[in-house]
Amino acid sequence: MNYKIELSSEEVPKKWYNINADLPCELPMPKNSEGRNQIEDLQKAFTKAALDQEFATERYIKIPQKVRELYMQMGRPTPLFRAKRLEEKLNTPAKIYYKREDTSPTGSHKLNSAIPQAYFAKKEGVERLTTETGAGQWGTALSLACSLLDLDCTVYMVKVSFNQKPDRKNIMNIYGGEVFASPSENTEFGRKVLAENPDHVGSLGIAISEAMEEALNNDNVKYTLGSVLNHVMLHQTVIGQELKTQLEIANEEPDTMIACVGGGSNFAGALYPFIKDKLDGNSDTKFIAVEPSACPTLTEGKYEYDFGDSNGFTPLLKMYTLGHDFVAPSVHAGGLRYHGMCPQISLLAHEGYINPVTAHQRDVFNAGIQFAKCEGIVPAPETTHAIKAGIDEAIKCRQTGEEKTIVINFSGHGMLDLKGYANYFSGEMPNSK
Amino acid sequence: MNYKIELSSEEVPKKWYNINADLPCELPMPKNSEGRNQIEDLQKAFTKAALDQEFATERYIKIPQKVRELYMQMGRPTPLFRAKRLEEKLNTPAKIYYKREDTSPTGSHKLNSAIPQAYFAKKEGVERLTTETGAGQWGTALSLACSLLDLDCTVYMVKVSFNQKPDRKNIMNIYGGEVFASPSENTEFGRKVLAENPDHVGSLGIAISEAMEEALNNDNVKYTLGSVLNHVMLHQTVIGQELKTQLEIANEEPDTMIACVGGGSNFAGALYPFIKDKLDGNSDTKFIAVEPSACPTLTEGKYEYDFGDSNGFTPLLKMYTLGHDFVAPSVHAGGLRYHGMCPQISLLAHEGYINPVTAHQRDVFNAGIQFAKCEGIVPAPETTHAIKAGIDEAIKCRQTGEEKTIVINFSGHGMLDLKGYANYFSGEMPNSK
Ligand SMILES: Cc1ncc(COP(=O)(O)O)c(C=O)c1O
Ligand SMILES: Cc1ncc(COP(=O)(O)O)c(C=O)c1O
Repeated sequence: MNYKIELSSEEVPKKWYNINADLPCELPMPKNSEGRNQIEDLQKAFTKAALDQEFATERYIKIPQKVRELYMQMGRPTPLFRAKRLEEKLNTPAKIYYKREDTSPTGSHKLNSAIPQAYFAKKEGVERLTTETGAGQWGTALSLACSLLDLDCTVYMVKVSFNQKPDRKNIMNIYGGEVFASPSENTEFGRKVLAENPDHVGSLGIAISEAMEEALNNDNVKYTLGSVLNHVMLHQTVIGQELKTQLEIANEEPDTMIACVGGGSNFAGALYPFIKDKLDGNSDTKFIAVEPSACPTLTEGKYEYDFGDSNGFTPLLKMYTLGHDFVAPSVHAGGLRYHGMCPQISLLAHEGYINPVTAHQRDVFNAGIQFAKCEGIVPAPETTHAIKAGIDEAIKCRQTGEEKTIVINFSGHGMLDLKGYANYFSGEMPNSK
Repeated sequence: MNYKIELSSEEVPKKWYNINADLPCELPMPKNSEGRNQIEDLQKAFTKAALDQEFATERYIKIPQKVRELYMQMGRPTPLFRAKRLEEKLNTPAKIYYKREDTSPTGSHKLNSAIPQAYFAKKEGVERLTTETGAGQWGTALSLACSLLDLDCTVYMVKVSFNQKPDRKNIMNIYGGEVFASPSENTEFGRKVLAENPDHVGSLGIAISEAMEEALNNDNVKYTLGSVLNHVMLHQTVIGQELKTQLEIANEEPDTMIACVGGGSNFAGALYPFIKDKLDGNSDTKFIAVEPSACPTLTEGKYEYDFGDSNGFTPLLKMYTLGHDFVAPSVHAGGLRYHGMCPQISLLAHEGYINPVTAHQRDVFNAGIQFAKCEGIVPAPETTHAIKAGIDEAIKCRQTGEEKTIVINFSGHGMLDLKGYANYFSGEMPNSK
């Protein structure tokens, strides 16, 4: 049998799918908080293309030929694999497929948005992109994208991550990215924080402020984000469109589709094209969004206006949120520790189109190990959440006898996050937090 | 254009190619050293299948269906990529292709031999496999193969590597491999070494002795090797056979084929099926074997009988060797620090069928970075040697105007070896040694 379904380079999608065109009700707009004008800042910090796409309402947006070409050169389309050995191990009648975003050179789906963001910046005459990174996957992807498009790249990495994950800095350096531990001496904001506390270990909020400050003070510099915002979701839809073609080739209709959610971009990318069918009334597929129990945004957060960052630099976004001052316990799935959620996904969850579930830390690592022992690939800590939910669904099928088709978005590999697994084996990992 | 050439699962080769059938002269047999009987030990330590294959003379050996199935489930065939961006960067008329063995779940070609070795052991009723590992790629592959075939796995890892590369231990643990820092307290040999020097940092020779001792003392335990021997080369020929099909699809005749050489297995695997054509008088392809200038086995070694290990436990093998007591300087390409070379490759080099070249450490990392910035994938330190030679060949084509087709075997990715790159950036890396 064929264990993998590959598409040729030419089958990279020609358009991104924009779910704004199909949402069941109007997406609430970002707002300024009282007496401040964060929207103006945002407009200055991002490229024009990103802002246009953020609020675009056309259903499909053409992927520039150069971006398609780069997607191809970086190996897209990614393969779809059948987890036959895992099925056998679980003794389930269910069929389990996984879409392999780990095959991206940087090891996750993040490059899908980094490439177009760098492309549009280059086109607008920008010379340098800035961003912040926590877990490191986004900074890595942006560093490579900037190398591909001949841009400079500055990454503010939360100081505690910077010190704990030297390999993340190393790989960004290979791609030519410049990485600073944040708070840094580069920016006014960083210097202010350091003046108050020279030993500050940093936070994502501070890193965002530093990266944005550079963009606000310099016309040749723009700021980028790797998740949460609509234009990032849009770019990621290449995943789901390829997946549609691949499932057609496999002659499968998915019963259950699963992705982990941090800011929402891999979930959106892989599932929006299928959620469209449900919005159109043509599908019964169940869409499961998996979050860590340590950061239960969709399951325990409130659907309300909140800041996108912890410092109140961004406009208010209507989304599920645990509060912008929520600090998630330090779990190994660094990419899933965000207090908020993409506004589109929040709306879809609120309207009942998405099933959010949580998973405990020890349980997801256990699922990741089970997966690796059967299928070979070691999943990223974020990805193990989707795998845990997939295994749970497959076990349910064993109990009910249903031959469901389960599709997991395999968002990334764990080669640069093996310490989390070591912590699991040490027995010192707390379960939920 | 199509940047990658993929084959379906069903196109995994059905046979391994055995170059013993086509060598230009008879391969000298292993010998005992005076007054000792290492051949008998070898016979006891290895599986029967491995020994049979070692001396087999049939041209093709059937791949058991279960092994083919596992190759497929682990993602074979691997893709062939065109390095179009690198070509453009080098401004060369040459076409550069690379065969992506890094797409194996363990990140290198090593799984191609680990799977059949584990399969045959299982078939012979073995319960546990032992091995040694230096750089860690082979131990990782064997750990996964043992998980796939439900065998226990014990890896003796040279203590200094064990301490420097915790992630290698972590990934082997994920697959269920048990990893000991060698010298260990598990074996008589290890205890003897520790009694003399409790702080001994270990060596590959000691680790081999420990792993072999376990196999010699226990009928349910067998010893395995990840390179140098003929049966390992045999298993790796799935690479080259796939590559033949892929180059046919691309409508290309390779002018130059390149692989790095440690013990020789990725070179043999990717190139033997093409070397066959040359032996048959049907090809002019140039075959380049790249070694580090710090360990110049083929370029500066002698072609003579020598021990396979540093302690004289193995029989004498006729091969290029720097002397079994040669200790290569500690370069980052740990997999290329072996004093000897596969006897088949040695013979072919001696007879002029292979062009060996050396490369300096700083130059190969520089080539690796150039590659990563164009093509995205970060190569393993071993693999950068092949890339360096490929870039040199492409630059020659720029000078001569020749539109050569250059094919590089991309033996593995560098995600677990990023420290080497950091060392390069620090400016502290010596060039050759
Ligand atoms: C491998 C991987 N998966 C998932 C995520 C979560 O992000 P998102 O929800 O935007 O896909 C991240 C974020 O860093 C990631 O690196
Ligand atoms: C990625 C990689 N390439 C090449 C080698 C060299 O081994 P061989 O010459 O047997 O292919 C190794 C050995 O560890 C390796 O890990």
